Amino acid sequence: MKYETLFADRTSTMGANIIREILKVVGQPGMISLAGGYPAPQSYPFEVIKQLSTAVLEKYGTKALQYDMTEGFLPLREALVPYLAQKGIETTAAGICITSGSQGLLDALGKVLITPGDAVAVEGPTYLGALSAFNPYGPRYVCAAMDDEGILPDALERILAAHAVKFVYLVPTFQNPTGRSLGVARRHQIAELLDKYDVLLCEDDPYSDLRYRGEALPTMYSLIPERTVYTTTLSKVFAPGLRIGICVAPEPVRKWLVLAKQGVDLNTSTFNQAMAAEYLLGGYLEKQIPKIIDLYKPKQEVMLNALDRYFPREWHYNKPEGGMFIWVEGPKGTDAEKLYWKCIERKAAFVPGKFFFPCEGDGLETMRLNYTMSSEEEIERGIKIIGDTIQEGF
Amino acid sequence: MKYETLFADRTSTMGANIIREILKVVGQPGMISLAGGYPAPQSYPFEVIKQLSTAVLEKYGTKALQYDMTEGFLPLREALVPYLAQKGIETTAAGICITSGSQGLLDALGKVLITPGDAVAVEGPTYLGALSAFNPYGPRYVCAAMDDEGILPDALERILAAHAVKFVYLVPTFQNPTGRSLGVARRHQIAELLDKYDVLLCEDDPYSDLRYRGEALPTMYSLIPERTVYTTTLSKVFAPGLRIGICVAPEPVRKWLVLAKQGVDLNTSTFNQAMAAEYLLGGYLEKQIPKIIDLYKPKQEVMLNALDRYFPREWHYNKPEGGMFIWVEGPKGTDAEKLYWKCIERKAAFVPGKFFFPCEGDGLETMRLNYTMSSEEEIERGIKIIGDTIQEGF
Repeated sequence: MKYETLFADRTSTMGANIIREILKVVGQPGMISLAGGYPAPQSYPFEVIKQLSTAVLEKYGTKALQYDMTEGFLPLREALVPYLAQKGIETTAAGICITSGSQGLLDALGKVLITPGDAVAVEGPTYLGALSAFNPYGPRYVCAAMDDEGILPDALERILAAHAVKFVYLVPTFQNPTGRSLGVARRHQIAELLDKYDVLLCEDDPYSDLRYRGEALPTMYSLIPERTVYTTTLSKVFAPGLRIGICVAPEPVRKWLVLAKQGVDLNTSTFNQAMAAEYLLGGYLEKQIPKIIDLYKPKQEVMLNALDRYFPREWHYNKPEGGMFIWVEGPKGTDAEKLYWKCIERKAAFVPGKFFFPCEGDGLETMRLNYTMSSEEEIERGIKIIGDTIQEGF
Repeated sequence: MKYETLFADRTSTMGANIIREILKVVGQPGMISLAGGYPAPQSYPFEVIKQLSTAVLEKYGTKALQYDMTEGFLPLREALVPYLAQKGIETTAAGICITSGSQGLLDALGKVLITPGDAVAVEGPTYLGALSAFNPYGPRYVCAAMDDEGILPDALERILAAHAVKFVYLVPTFQNPTGRSLGVARRHQIAELLDKYDVLLCEDDPYSDLRYRGEALPTMYSLIPERTVYTTTLSKVFAPGLRIGICVAPEPVRKWLVLAKQGVDLNTSTFNQAMAAEYLLGGYLEKQIPKIIDLYKPKQEVMLNALDRYFPREWHYNKPEGGMFIWVEGPKGTDAEKLYWKCIERKAAFVPGKFFFPCEGDGLETMRLNYTMSSEEEIERGIKIIGDTIQEGF
């Protein structure tokens, strides 16, 4: 049959997630990949999960295997209340919605908020998964510039003054792709701006538990709860393959998010939610986080030291206090994609940063580096390969 | 903040799934519910799942806990090839996509195919979950009448001749809500019509494994593979709380379905997919299906006998050869919702059939009965309560 004429207008906006495409080349044998964005398998509480998988069947019986409420498995939502309170998020089980990864929340949010042509303000660069969730709903992105301390309040204000922005999407802490965190003073400024212009915020917070140094930052939700849709995930502190996302949102928005989710998956895996509940209730999560930090922190240090050693002085990189990424900026005129293909030949991979910018032509000289998936030795060697390739003028 | 003006135009189309709303009343203590659509917890291979949950961690290690390909966990897709072949579906692992329940496929299909205003042809009545998946994408439903042998080919042809139908959505075997199956001759007629008018089909097939009597029917996919998006689920033959759906579709459609799914959930729970793979590879599924049939068949017989005994002669009901539902039609002028509320007072529940019709005013005299979730004694008592209420003129 003639398939070409079948598709909806919106379908052309659904490009492949380029990072996932790039990771295909990266799977070649012998490749040192600093391109990934996955948590290290060594960070999973493997033995705990083994134990919990049978324990939940004993505790919850067939309830753990049945359909369940779209809002989420109640014991999990109850267990999340004190966990979220530590982040300044005061809510009840009824205020929480469980989604199939935070990706599920991003899709639902796009679906209930974006009419084609609506302006959505994002950081430049921003998380690519958010763009692929929002794209089918037809947003027009307006991009606020960042520096090492996150989004620039002035840049955001210019956008809010000039556009009828439907919502602002931010990853304020240890952002993917940059690892940057929004400073405390700026958080207050952004909160005031959102109040002033009466705009909703989506705060995506997957990384804040992975803090290696420094003081915890207040969540945006804790500053402006009535205008924040907060989302986080257990993918970085439990296991991503279980697909558990968490959302807290004002009731008038949350009720529509739940209806949108109902049409998409009815409910998130009950069994996996039951395991997550026991992971929290048994105190395993709080014991696991320091182990994950002990795993990642030295890897990050190795990467920072190697960057210092092998990269030319004109190349700038940041030193995030946590998370999974380091952001590197070459001198103006650098073509980081050209460098990428050269490094692939030499068996080292990163992600050219331009793919994280919604506007074509931005960030050509940038790259994202990840240190969670490689050994310290591989990180050292990978950075040396990239640094040497740069030094040779690639 | 003013939330009312926040929402997208499409959001108003997202009503609550009325069956889920109705099930809230039905949770009252002492209620006999013939309203559900859930598989019986006794149908789950509970001990097998307990065993598999640790076995997959031993076999696949941390791979079972990591992010995975959007298309689905390869060992599961490979294990599904012979399972699908039994249904006349000749494909390879590459032709299969795993979704988060078949609901995930219905959402993705709506997203990639429906431009607002597009005509989608459905059976009247049809599966409500499909409507809640499609609604946000703005379809215009055209409804083809059915009789006890499924959709009427003449009715479908009139629709295909009069409307530019984007796709036809059918549940051809043991349909939810009616339990009806499309006869073999009609399957061939429908296949010819779809060829003649060059229209795509979505064949939703969650119930065909639950056959208590009679001969298996050919899947529509086996007749017109190049124009069929086939979907089924492990929810009725494994466990619904694991949220595993299966899709086979022509490559030009499938590649967009995968991209749509990527924006929604990245991938379906890897851990649950690994369990499903082992469930198939270990031969557990083929052993479980006869057990589920042994559980449901006598329940259905009790319901059919009770209907015969307690319902007035003018009320018509069908005798499906399998599945989970029986469809009852009262005489013209019956208000089945009025009957519903009367029966709720007397502690027996069903679903008024009108909720399954996309066009308001259709099916006022109909009801859906489910027998999987109640004991034989409860079924007998529930049908007696409803029958007595009818006899008393409610």
